[in-house]
Amino acid sequence: MPAVPHVEKHFTAGETVRDVVIGMSDGLTVPFALAAGLSGAVAGTGIIVTAGLAEIAAGSIAMGLGGYLAARSDAEHYASERRREEREVVEKAEAEREEVRDVFRGYGLADETIAPVVAALEAKPKAWVDFMMRFELGLEEPDPRRALASALTIALAYVVGGLVPLAPYFFQHEAHRALGVSVVFTLVALLVFGFFKGRFTGASPVRSGLQTALVGGLAAAAAFALAKLFGGGA
Amino acid sequence: MPAVPHVEKHFTAGETVRDVVIGMSDGLTVPFALAAGLSGAVAGTGIIVTAGLAEIAAGSIAMGLGGYLAARSDAEHYASERRREEREVVEKAEAEREEVRDVFRGYGLADETIAPVVAALEAKPKAWVDFMMRFELGLEEPDPRRALASALTIALAYVVGGLVPLAPYFFQHEAHRALGVSVVFTLVALLVFGFFKGRFTGASPVRSGLQTALVGGLAAAAAFALAKLFGGGA
Repeated sequence: MPAVPHVEKHFTAGETVRDVVIGMSDGLTVPFALAAGLSGAVAGTGIIVTAGLAEIAAGSIAMGLGGYLAARSDAEHYASERRREEREVVEKAEAEREEVRDVFRGYGLADETIAPVVAALEAKPKAWVDFMMRFELGLEEPDPRRALASALTIALAYVVGGLVPLAPYFFQHEAHRALGVSVVFTLVALLVFGFFKGRFTGASPVRSGLQTALVGGLAAAAAFALAKLFGGGA
Repeated sequence: MPAVPHVEKHFTAGETVRDVVIGMSDGLTVPFALAAGLSGAVAGTGIIVTAGLAEIAAGSIAMGLGGYLAARSDAEHYASERRREEREVVEKAEAEREEVRDVFRGYGLADETIAPVVAALEAKPKAWVDFMMRFELGLEEPDPRRALASALTIALAYVVGGLVPLAPYFFQHEAHRALGVSVVFTLVALLVFGFFKGRFTGASPVRSGLQTALVGGLAAAAAFALAKLFGGGA
């Protein structure tokens, strides 16, 4: 054992940070692009504020509630797969032993090295099932208490992100002027957000900032062009 | 060995199906809710079609391009973590051996059962790094060729999903009437989509259908209420 504990420096983002990143990525991008698109079709900002708020409500509920229900499904999926493994280590023990051997053979281990491991797992059925869940199926046990906190964090981050591009439309009643302020505000916000997202996820912060601004900018440009094209009926 | 090969019946969704599910979940929900929200604030459908198309453009680009760049980042993250592990099995070999032991101790294995496995991994540095990537860090090697196909599939599914709730507004010029048709169309589409999503993801199809329709319905109701409240400026 080394005298100084060896601490792995591999990055693992905190789950709350990850949830903020998920919600804010879309929150900064889609309402921004929608407002920009409508600015290409209408002169007043009233309808843009209405559409923007409707989008923020819809998007935050879809992401938050959708994410909550997906997390609950994951937890149920894990539980049902676990029950199946618990049955299989009893009813199809030799097949499951062979699956353990296959996992290790994939790393070039000889059968005589593997045999004591298989025997040790067989003596502890709970550990054996744990092993199969993780190493054969690649499933981690979801934390059921995280689902609600995660959903609320994602939804709130979406709302906060979405209000940044929309704010100028509250104070400016001429859509093209509000759009100019919104573009500057939001591109700066996307650059800063992308920079910190890069730091938290282990990517290059500068490149992450530029990429995040690129996605938002392209989405807004496409929405603007499409709304200009189809905006005759507005 | 059993005479009949034992085929695991655990569910693993095809990746294309998974991408369609990701894109269509949001595509059916957010444009539906936005159009419903605007129907609470305006009388004509022209602006709703414009806003809906702008949203579909923005949402599909944000999801598709955002997903593509995220997949590329994942691939780079994997590569950089792998280089770090390759260094560490050389420079901090004892610490890495201890990490292998810790993985197996977590399954109740005794050190004398673990020792031959550690020795066998040490003899094959590439397999050792493979093992650490998967079992210590829980990272799977991303397939770089999937990133583009995945992005296009998600974006296309978003567009197809988004056109379902929007279609009635193309043909009906009175917003409240179009809304009625859109609600019926989209709730049926959400039920059917949720049903198949449940079948593909291993959840209960009926409950998945009801949950998917619930998320879409709640998002639309919230967007409608908010747009009614703030729609005075429209």
